[in-house]
Amino acid sequence: MSNLLDQVNPELLRTYAFWSVILVAKMLLMSLFTTMTRFRKMAFINPEDVKSISPKLKPKLDDPDVERVRRAHRNDLENILPFFVVAFLYLLTNPDPWLATQLIRVAAAGRIVHSLVYAVMPVPQPARLFSFGATLLVTVYMVVQCAFYFV
Amino acid sequence: MSNLLDQVNPELLRTYAFWSVILVAKMLLMSLFTTMTRFRKMAFINPEDVKSISPKLKPKLDDPDVERVRRAHRNDLENILPFFVVAFLYLLTNPDPWLATQLIRVAAAGRIVHSLVYAVMPVPQPARLFSFGATLLVTVYMVVQCAFYFV
Amino acid sequence: MSNLLDQVNPELLRTYAFWSVILVAKMLLMSLFTTMTRFRKMAFINPEDVKSISPKLKPKLDDPDVERVRRAHRNDLENILPFFVVAFLYLLTNPDPWLATQLIRVAAAGRIVHSLVYAVMPVPQPARLFSFGATLLVTVYMVVQCAFYFV
Repeated sequence: MSNLLDQVNPELLRTYAFWSVILVAKMLLMSLFTTMTRFRKMAFINPEDVKSISPKLKPKLDDPDVERVRRAHRNDLENILPFFVVAFLYLLTNPDPWLATQLIRVAAAGRIVHSLVYAVMPVPQPARLFSFGATLLVTVYMVVQCAFYFV
Repeated sequence: MSNLLDQVNPELLRTYAFWSVILVAKMLLMSLFTTMTRFRKMAFINPEDVKSISPKLKPKLDDPDVERVRRAHRNDLENILPFFVVAFLYLLTNPDPWLATQLIRVAAAGRIVHSLVYAVMPVPQPARLFSFGATLLVTVYMVVQCAFYFV
Repeated sequence: MSNLLDQVNPELLRTYAFWSVILVAKMLLMSLFTTMTRFRKMAFINPEDVKSISPKLKPKLDDPDVERVRRAHRNDLENILPFFVVAFLYLLTNPDPWLATQLIRVAAAGRIVHSLVYAVMPVPQPARLFSFGATLLVTVYMVVQCAFYFV
């Protein structure tokens, strides 16, 4: 049996790698956005941070805007990080290159839109549900394909 | 020196890939279970979600059942995601295939049981401690093996 | 076009693998440290844990020391896990081995110092900011290199 890692389509691996680093960049922006929101609302958690900014400031743990960005960021951890694993394993299943490319693009677009409508500019449902669902459906499809291929 | 990626045992890679996607599926179910619990307890956080469900509903941030599922989910992020990385690197250390297969199975089973006894049907300790510990011990063993191999 | 996975420098892969498992070990220690802090402050969340320790104890959700360790741990999830993905993809871009080795070491050292100054022995800013920033800058550099290479 030949090595599964050798049968990865190089073009697909490029597509996967490109969109993966875009999604990592998007996740890092969530950290930055949390910090920006903390400064805008002057809502810091750690006493040592508060002290270094202003002696009169007190820690604030429940600012709704900060917590919203943090929820969006946590949602990234729950969905983007497992996607990285499944999508890489999916590349080993010898998928149709056109389909796999579109799936990776849809999954990435879904998460970018999700961040925009959740954290940056909150809009009414179902915008968040649909963007969340797009990536989730792609991930579930890849999980099922992998499960049958690798079992 | 030949490429480390070429020496991955193909059968072990299949085992790793299969249980990894099962664990990702398990993690995705935690998202679904959180949403189900939010509806069962009518405990939603985001104002735009609350509004789209009922105009009289208010955001609720501290429902104990929802928070329990979220803690179990976060525990997955803390333990399953690093396991994916270490187990893949462990495959590159040319481990005994039988042992490596059993370790991956134990680690996966540990996390599945952990979710059941933590989030789905809470049972008294030490059920959660033992299931948590099973995966943790496997991960620590793999970390140590990798550290000595790659140093 | 040859397979990208074949062009990984074996020595670099070893460096990546070694520091990755060190960082996973560091993350696992955060779980242990959370539990130790919970016992030191007698601050447990789950009713079944509280009951198994002492019948008079009540759940405590807002201990500042426990929450500090949990924030440091979550910060690991947000930064170390994406680093694993980007650094692996960066190895596929055929980087200068000396530079890549130093970048991986700086990123790993940044996260180890971050945990020490955030969770273990809190020190005033900018210690946490600098250690956080060191790993972030390395990650951003790798993201940019990958984005241009894989596009």
